[in-house]
Amino acid sequence: MSLSNARGVFVIAPTPFLDDGRVDNVSVDRMTDFFLAAGATGITVLGQMGEAPKLDHSEALDVAQRVIRRATVPVVVGVSAPGFAAMRSLARASMEAGAAGVMIAPPNTLRTDEQVSGYFRQAAEAIGHDVPFVLQDYPLTFSVVMTPGVIRRIVMDNPSCVMLKHEDWPGLEKISALRGYERDGSMRHISILCGNGGLFLDFELERGADGAMTGYCFPDMLADVVRLHGEGRRDAMHDLFDAHLPLIRYEQQQGIGLAVRKYVLMRRGVIASQAQRRPAVQLSPAARAEVDFLLQRVGKFDARAALR
Amino acid sequence: MSLSNARGVFVIAPTPFLDDGRVDNVSVDRMTDFFLAAGATGITVLGQMGEAPKLDHSEALDVAQRVIRRATVPVVVGVSAPGFAAMRSLARASMEAGAAGVMIAPPNTLRTDEQVSGYFRQAAEAIGHDVPFVLQDYPLTFSVVMTPGVIRRIVMDNPSCVMLKHEDWPGLEKISALRGYERDGSMRHISILCGNGGLFLDFELERGADGAMTGYCFPDMLADVVRLHGEGRRDAMHDLFDAHLPLIRYEQQQGIGLAVRKYVLMRRGVIASQAQRRPAVQLSPAARAEVDFLLQRVGKFDARAALR
Amino acid sequence: MSLSNARGVFVIAPTPFLDDGRVDNVSVDRMTDFFLAAGATGITVLGQMGEAPKLDHSEALDVAQRVIRRATVPVVVGVSAPGFAAMRSLARASMEAGAAGVMIAPPNTLRTDEQVSGYFRQAAEAIGHDVPFVLQDYPLTFSVVMTPGVIRRIVMDNPSCVMLKHEDWPGLEKISALRGYERDGSMRHISILCGNGGLFLDFELERGADGAMTGYCFPDMLADVVRLHGEGRRDAMHDLFDAHLPLIRYEQQQGIGLAVRKYVLMRRGVIASQAQRRPAVQLSPAARAEVDFLLQRVGKFDARAALR
Amino acid sequence: MSLSNARGVFVIAPTPFLDDGRVDNVSVDRMTDFFLAAGATGITVLGQMGEAPKLDHSEALDVAQRVIRRATVPVVVGVSAPGFAAMRSLARASMEAGAAGVMIAPPNTLRTDEQVSGYFRQAAEAIGHDVPFVLQDYPLTFSVVMTPGVIRRIVMDNPSCVMLKHEDWPGLEKISALRGYERDGSMRHISILCGNGGLFLDFELERGADGAMTGYCFPDMLADVVRLHGEGRRDAMHDLFDAHLPLIRYEQQQGIGLAVRKYVLMRRGVIASQAQRRPAVQLSPAARAEVDFLLQRVGKFDARAALR
Repeated sequence: MSLSNARGVFVIAPTPFLDDGRVDNVSVDRMTDFFLAAGATGITVLGQMGEAPKLDHSEALDVAQRVIRRATVPVVVGVSAPGFAAMRSLARASMEAGAAGVMIAPPNTLRTDEQVSGYFRQAAEAIGHDVPFVLQDYPLTFSVVMTPGVIRRIVMDNPSCVMLKHEDWPGLEKISALRGYERDGSMRHISILCGNGGLFLDFELERGADGAMTGYCFPDMLADVVRLHGEGRRDAMHDLFDAHLPLIRYEQQQGIGLAVRKYVLMRRGVIASQAQRRPAVQLSPAARAEVDFLLQRVGKFDARAALR
Repeated sequence: MSLSNARGVFVIAPTPFLDDGRVDNVSVDRMTDFFLAAGATGITVLGQMGEAPKLDHSEALDVAQRVIRRATVPVVVGVSAPGFAAMRSLARASMEAGAAGVMIAPPNTLRTDEQVSGYFRQAAEAIGHDVPFVLQDYPLTFSVVMTPGVIRRIVMDNPSCVMLKHEDWPGLEKISALRGYERDGSMRHISILCGNGGLFLDFELERGADGAMTGYCFPDMLADVVRLHGEGRRDAMHDLFDAHLPLIRYEQQQGIGLAVRKYVLMRRGVIASQAQRRPAVQLSPAARAEVDFLLQRVGKFDARAALR
Repeated sequence: MSLSNARGVFVIAPTPFLDDGRVDNVSVDRMTDFFLAAGATGITVLGQMGEAPKLDHSEALDVAQRVIRRATVPVVVGVSAPGFAAMRSLARASMEAGAAGVMIAPPNTLRTDEQVSGYFRQAAEAIGHDVPFVLQDYPLTFSVVMTPGVIRRIVMDNPSCVMLKHEDWPGLEKISALRGYERDGSMRHISILCGNGGLFLDFELERGADGAMTGYCFPDMLADVVRLHGEGRRDAMHDLFDAHLPLIRYEQQQGIGLAVRKYVLMRRGVIASQAQRRPAVQLSPAARAEVDFLLQRVGKFDARAALR
Repeated sequence: MSLSNARGVFVIAPTPFLDDGRVDNVSVDRMTDFFLAAGATGITVLGQMGEAPKLDHSEALDVAQRVIRRATVPVVVGVSAPGFAAMRSLARASMEAGAAGVMIAPPNTLRTDEQVSGYFRQAAEAIGHDVPFVLQDYPLTFSVVMTPGVIRRIVMDNPSCVMLKHEDWPGLEKISALRGYERDGSMRHISILCGNGGLFLDFELERGADGAMTGYCFPDMLADVVRLHGEGRRDAMHDLFDAHLPLIRYEQQQGIGLAVRKYVLMRRGVIASQAQRRPAVQLSPAARAEVDFLLQRVGKFDARAALR
């Protein structure tokens, strides 16, 4: 199956570390199994939230290979890099290891429409036109704004562009615009999976997105939301989503989001330690208590959140 | 009462326009009455969400005067401007009209700690040391980052700084740090009212904030949340807050937030038209249907949202 | 004569202040006369370097009117503002006072091609289609990047766009591209006057620019450079330009450039005081000595710089 | 000799490529010899202008090793990276290969004073406290502004910080402030070498800088300027500097500067090709003619520029 028809939930995987800073391979495996059991239809490694820049080249490749070998679903590898040489070498190595595709975010120096579309034309050439890639559209972090027209141009310029990781904010109209391009025949179909921590997943699905690509600490809930949407059970979908929204919102805070995510995954028994490599943000005792409180409240609705 | 002891909800007032673009004075009055009935303890006019830059000097002053004359609570006037001359003239005129204080946001060119604290020292001098001012801390929009230490320096440098409009994100630790400064005696007490559309109001109150300064379309709910918190009814507070969170989150989308807010205030009968002056963002039919759907869902919990 | 055919030097006028901060009208007049005697073909008031944001509305208009009344050349008034209301009111008042046109810079929030061209379409409508306007393209300060194609779209969308204040950096290819559009018939002719403190004026003229719009403290030299270029005396033009380049470069330093400019204009007897309104940057004694040294060196080549 | 006492000219080395994109080792060697003959007292490889992000890890290390082996002067290796893992591995490998130190630029996300000083404390720990490092201060490119006080804190926090690559703009007062700190005993001595393409080298030396760290295409001139300054021959120093200023200014244009530099080095016979790896900017025929014209004019004063 091509990534361009992907649906469901591609979980953005964090990179588990031991308390001494080494990669925790046992947790990598357990986490991979957990994502599969949670209903993930894909896994994305080495994304922004995977602490990729804190890994050196061989560590990064090791993590990617380990997840790819174990997973029974497509794995996407983040290969964003300040230059095309490193991007190419990680992309080629990932594909050789069995990745389904790679993900590329734009450098924050791009401004004009031409600069943006030109960058992706060069990137697609650098990694090789045989490598399927996911276009990451995340203005809040990258300061690069792509109109629907620019995304269309990138898709049409580059046959190897197969998916959009959509996390513009606000972004609902962008999904509608892109699906409109597909309907009017001016853009071929691509998969649209949504990030932003899942904060707008409910309406993103209703606007035509195929699912989520995010690392919210309850991927099982995300999978259920996508399923309920597919079954046309609108109120049930929103009820489940809304029960998690207070925690989704809390996890969505830039800077401490990853700490929340790792803490909950640790509490859920998925990873052994919440350790991050430096530079790292720690949860304060107050923040930890807030997360515990939120878990308890979510647990009243969704038994999965009723942790020990 | 000094603004430095203010608590509760200072509503950020939008500026109502007629469909032909003129200021709608009838709606200004009705909106002012509505805010008072909703339990507002203050009103802030000419803020970011008040379309202040779209008003010329005399229009701006008219709106401020009109609200001040009618309101029985303190009114804060936004006076941020690209230069001190315009800032001073609006600040002096507002105080003469009866404002309780003014609000100042930093220009987006400031970077270093010294630049930030220096700016507010000059601004305080420019408007006059007799004018109480609210410090607006909103990095997401203004790109100016103030550490707790810088805020303390501004507070201690400027006796006329009486309140923080807190909308850093993430910002919970900042509230804790500032209240810690007060406890250890290194900073005098100021009022902390929180913005960000109310998205974190539940925990902001628990960290020590005095309330909200935001324009979420249900200020009555915000007032109830602050009240429930004051009464120590934690679960009831979170239950009410969480029921509104899907809509709060929707309204929090940069760019279209004001359109959502005006649309709901119009549906609630508070203002006559959702018109904005240009440049303006319109709600698409899909977005309007989403807001209607959210109102209906909120209405199941909170009767106020069950609009006709 | 329409501004679209303007050539030569439009001097960016600083606003002279007395030491007590009031506008120095005597210096405004003397400065206006000086610019005319120096060979200016136009004057631009209330630009970035005119400390416009430090003037309130009536002061700004007074300065504009005073220069317009006295000048025998076209006067352009900077009307950039955070909102269209203030922009419109200053633009209309300026035109009534006899201005030849206005100048508009883009707000720094614009990113995509559509946002940029859309902004100028709305601005042109806001000020009225009968008001000729100068498009200011200054990415270094405004963080807004316009491709030649976007500039063409703005020119073709808006018949009232008559001139480009060109200060992209690097920008020589942009001039060539725009003149190419004129030759291939895809863009009507506009005047291109160059800013950036004159730092690239030598080659900008050779690429097709019509002259300078900048406030370098020797506008008489700028006028001679344009004249020598027009006479085809290439080496003489570069010799004169290069003699001034060390000082041009020094004045081009962001932040202290205006202090240098006012200091030299004061030393040349054009304005009475180098005072700026706050926030202001002062020349240190070391910096003043450096400027004196540069003036002395320029003076060996160009007698005008041999000040008392 | 420690880098903290370095003086003279550390040339920022470009990375020479063959037309097919491979690193041109023959040119690397010839270029190294040329820099030594030109009077370089040090060489910096893998800087911003060394196209470092376009090299993969092993290529980068090869270039560094090759220059280190051949050079008889200290070599500094740029190790800025989006994460500490890659920074550490390149830094350790460079030191093992014989580098004198490494250079670190701040990531563009840093804003507050604490964030900046905290970053360098973590970076110094990450690479190891035994690795001397150069602090790069380049706000125009990195958007990170460091006050003199923050630089002092970094120097005093980190004994391994031995040099400042100074390229703030304007930056003359910063040099004076830092030298003042040394005189008042609040900061230990570090070497200050100046970048910015050399555009202010004349006055930077007079303010107390120890020399230049830049890749201007006539490093021999830079060395002579430093020497003339050391000999107290002020006018001769400025005469030489000013003769090159038109070309220095031209080369200083962001984006095309490297193309100008490589073109002139090719014309001088130092490197075989002006090829850059993508993304690359090409000189247009018009730009090439402008550089040729500037070389011819410089050549009237400085015989070195009178190329064949």
